[in-house]
Amino acid sequence: MVERSPRGRFTVNRRRLLVGGAAALAGSAALTQCARGQPDEARGGFGAEAEPFYGTHQGGIATPPQAHALLVALDLKPQTGRTPRDTVAAILRLWTADASRLTQGRPALADTEPELAHRPARLTVTVGLGPAVFDRIGLAHLRPATATDLPEFGTDRLEPQWCGGDLLLQICADDPVVVAHAGRVLLKNVRTMATQRWRQSGFRGARGSDPSGATMRNMMGQVDGTVNLTDAAAFDRHVWDHGAQQRWFAGGTVAVVRRIRAEMDTWDQIDRESKELAVGRRLDNGAPLTGEQEFDEPDLTASVNGIPVIPPNSHVALARPRSEDEQFLRRPYNYDDPPSGGQTTDSGLIFVTYQRDPARQFVPVQQRLADGDALNEWITTIGSSVFAILPGVEDGQYLGQALLESAS
Amino acid sequence: MVERSPRGRFTVNRRRLLVGGAAALAGSAALTQCARGQPDEARGGFGAEAEPFYGTHQGGIATPPQAHALLVALDLKPQTGRTPRDTVAAILRLWTADASRLTQGRPALADTEPELAHRPARLTVTVGLGPAVFDRIGLAHLRPATATDLPEFGTDRLEPQWCGGDLLLQICADDPVVVAHAGRVLLKNVRTMATQRWRQSGFRGARGSDPSGATMRNMMGQVDGTVNLTDAAAFDRHVWDHGAQQRWFAGGTVAVVRRIRAEMDTWDQIDRESKELAVGRRLDNGAPLTGEQEFDEPDLTASVNGIPVIPPNSHVALARPRSEDEQFLRRPYNYDDPPSGGQTTDSGLIFVTYQRDPARQFVPVQQRLADGDALNEWITTIGSSVFAILPGVEDGQYLGQALLESAS
Repeated sequence: MVERSPRGRFTVNRRRLLVGGAAALAGSAALTQCARGQPDEARGGFGAEAEPFYGTHQGGIATPPQAHALLVALDLKPQTGRTPRDTVAAILRLWTADASRLTQGRPALADTEPELAHRPARLTVTVGLGPAVFDRIGLAHLRPATATDLPEFGTDRLEPQWCGGDLLLQICADDPVVVAHAGRVLLKNVRTMATQRWRQSGFRGARGSDPSGATMRNMMGQVDGTVNLTDAAAFDRHVWDHGAQQRWFAGGTVAVVRRIRAEMDTWDQIDRESKELAVGRRLDNGAPLTGEQEFDEPDLTASVNGIPVIPPNSHVALARPRSEDEQFLRRPYNYDDPPSGGQTTDSGLIFVTYQRDPARQFVPVQQRLADGDALNEWITTIGSSVFAILPGVEDGQYLGQALLESAS
Repeated sequence: MVERSPRGRFTVNRRRLLVGGAAALAGSAALTQCARGQPDEARGGFGAEAEPFYGTHQGGIATPPQAHALLVALDLKPQTGRTPRDTVAAILRLWTADASRLTQGRPALADTEPELAHRPARLTVTVGLGPAVFDRIGLAHLRPATATDLPEFGTDRLEPQWCGGDLLLQICADDPVVVAHAGRVLLKNVRTMATQRWRQSGFRGARGSDPSGATMRNMMGQVDGTVNLTDAAAFDRHVWDHGAQQRWFAGGTVAVVRRIRAEMDTWDQIDRESKELAVGRRLDNGAPLTGEQEFDEPDLTASVNGIPVIPPNSHVALARPRSEDEQFLRRPYNYDDPPSGGQTTDSGLIFVTYQRDPARQFVPVQQRLADGDALNEWITTIGSSVFAILPGVEDGQYLGQALLESAS
C-alpha cells in the first residue's frame, strides 16, 4: 500500500501512473495503442479510481494524500432511551455502511444524490474517537493510553472552537464534489446523534497539475513535508498500533490535528534570506541550506566563519528527529478561509499527523519547536485535537466493533 | 476562443485535448511515442497551461470553467489625499500588473511567494465595478445603463453580507493553491485602498476526474447548466457589449452574482420522482422528462392523459428562454461552507451569469422563476450583486483605463 522511495517520494502508485505522470500514462497508453487500440484505463479519468475500504488499517492514513480534505469533529448529543455507548455504535455502524459504499463509487444506503457517488476519485473516510469519549461510553479502561490530550505548548493560542471533539471524520478525495457529497451523507445520517464541533476544509495542489511528484507547498511558499515516513517498515514502527496495551486497538493509530495559522502579513514583510534562515531550507526547491536538493540531509554542523549555515533555532534544525522515536506521519492540508475583521487573509495549515504515541513521538518535537523555532514569529497554533483512529475492519464488521462489543 | 458545439459542449479545446480527454491525450501521445519517443506536451501536467490575459475581453468569461473559483467583492476605503477615482485607478493598475503576470505563470511584482506562481493551471482574473462606484468616482455619466442593481424578487431572502460591492474580483483556476495565492497577492496589494465586503469560494468537479465533458452537477445532484451559450456568435449577441451606449465599454459585459442556498434537508426528504418533476429533467442523465439525452429539446407540449409530462411550473419550463433576448452565459460554481447554528450543511450555488443587459436577458427569466418555479421550495437566493465587467486590454494598458482616463 505504501510505495515510497527512501527519499519520501512515491515510486509506484496509481496516481502517478494514471494521471500525475502524464508521460507515464502516455507511455503505457502508447504501448496499448500501438498494440491494440485505445487504452481503456485512460478514458475514464481518475474519478473512477477507488481506494480499498476494508483492511487491517483505515484508509486516508497511508493513502497517498488526495487533493482535498474535509475534517469534522463531532460531539455526542444526549439521547433519550439510548446510552452513549449505543449511540456511538449506531454512528459507527452508519458510517461503516456508508463509507464502505461511497469509497467504492456506490451510493450510500438511501443516498438522495446517488449521481454524486459514482466517481469516488480515491475517496477515503477515516474515523476516530476523542480521548474523553471513552469515559462517556463507559469504556475508560479500554482507552489506548496513547490517545490522550496533548500538553499545551507555550506558543499555543488555542481557540476552543478549533479544539477537541468526541468523534473525528476525515474525508479525503481528489475531487471536491466527492468530498462535499460524502460529507453531506455522513453528517446528515448522524445529525440526531451528534453535533458538529468544528469543521476544517483543506487542499493541496490539484491532482494532475504537477506530475513531478514534488512535495506540496504551503501557503507561505515553503515545501512542506519533506521529512516523512516512507516505507511499510516505518509505518509499522511509528504509525500502527500493535495492540500490546489494548488488544482491540491493533491496526489503529493516533491522530493529532493542529490548526496552524500563517501570519501572512508579517511573513510577507521579511526578505527571502530571512525566511530561508527561519526555515533552514531554500524556498525555491526546499533544499537544506547546506545542500542542493530537497532530499539532501541537512548538515547541522556546517558553519562558515564559525556561524552555522543552518541556524540552530531554524525550523528544520529543531523539527528533525533526535531519536528513533521522534518520527511520525505528516499528512497536512492548506486552508484558505474568509478572513474576519479587517484581515486580508486567513490561511495556514491543517497539520494532521499520525503516530502510535504522540507523547513519545510528537510532543518532544513540538516542545522543541515551541521553545525555540524561529518560525514561531509567523505561525500560530489555534487548534489542537487528538483522536484514537480505529483499526480497519473486514466486510461484515463495523468500525469500532471490537471496542464497543467488548465485555465491559 | 469559444469552441463549443451547438449543444453546449466544447468541441476542441486545450482542456479536453491535454487532460480532460485522456483518450485524446493518449491518442496523440501514442502517435508521438510511436514516431519519436516521449510526448513533451504531456509531461508537464495541466499546471503549465495558461489562459491569455490580454485581448478584447477579459478572461474567465468565455474561458471553459476552471475547477475552482474565488469571488471577492470589495468596497473602496476613504483615502486621505487621493480621490476615489484615483484610488480605483491605482487598484486597477495594480491588478492589471499582477494578473497579467500571474495568469502567465510569472510571479507578481514583489511576489513574496513566487514559487506558488509558476504553474497557473489556467488562472484567470476577472474584474468588475459595482453600479454605485461610478457615482463615487464622479463618472456617473459613463456608467453603462445596463449595469444597474436588479429588482428584488419575491422569493429573495437577501442577506446584506452577500450583496453589493464596489469592485468584483473573480479568480478561477484548475488548482486551489493557485487560486489562494492569486487571491492573496491581489487582495494584499490593495488592502490600504479597499476592504473585502464578501468572499465566496466555489468548485466544480476536479479537472481530469471525468473527461467525458459532462455538464457539471450541483450539490442537489442535478446536472446544472445544460442550456448555455455555445458559440462565438451567441457570445457576440448575448454577452459582449458593443459600446453602442458607452463607447469605453465595448468588449465588456455585465455580471450577475447570485448566492443560492440549497435547502438540502427538505430536498432530501422528497422522492426522486418529485425532484424530477420539480426540475423537469431526469436526475440520472439530465435529460428532459420528454427526452432521452441531456441535450434533447424539452417538449413542453407533451402530455399524458391531459397532464403535461414536464410540469409548466417546473424549473426547466420556466427557465427556458421565451424570446431571443432571454439568453445569457451561466458560469456557476458549487459552494459547501461550514454550517452555522445546528444546520447539517450550508451548500448551494454561486450562480454567476454574464450578459449584455440583465434587465432584458436575466430579469424576465428570474421573474418567471420567482413567480412560479416548483424548485423555489428548496432553493433560496441569499445574495445578489451586479458588476460592469471591464473590457479587456492590450499590453501597456490597464483594466478600466478607457473609463478612468476619459475626459470627465
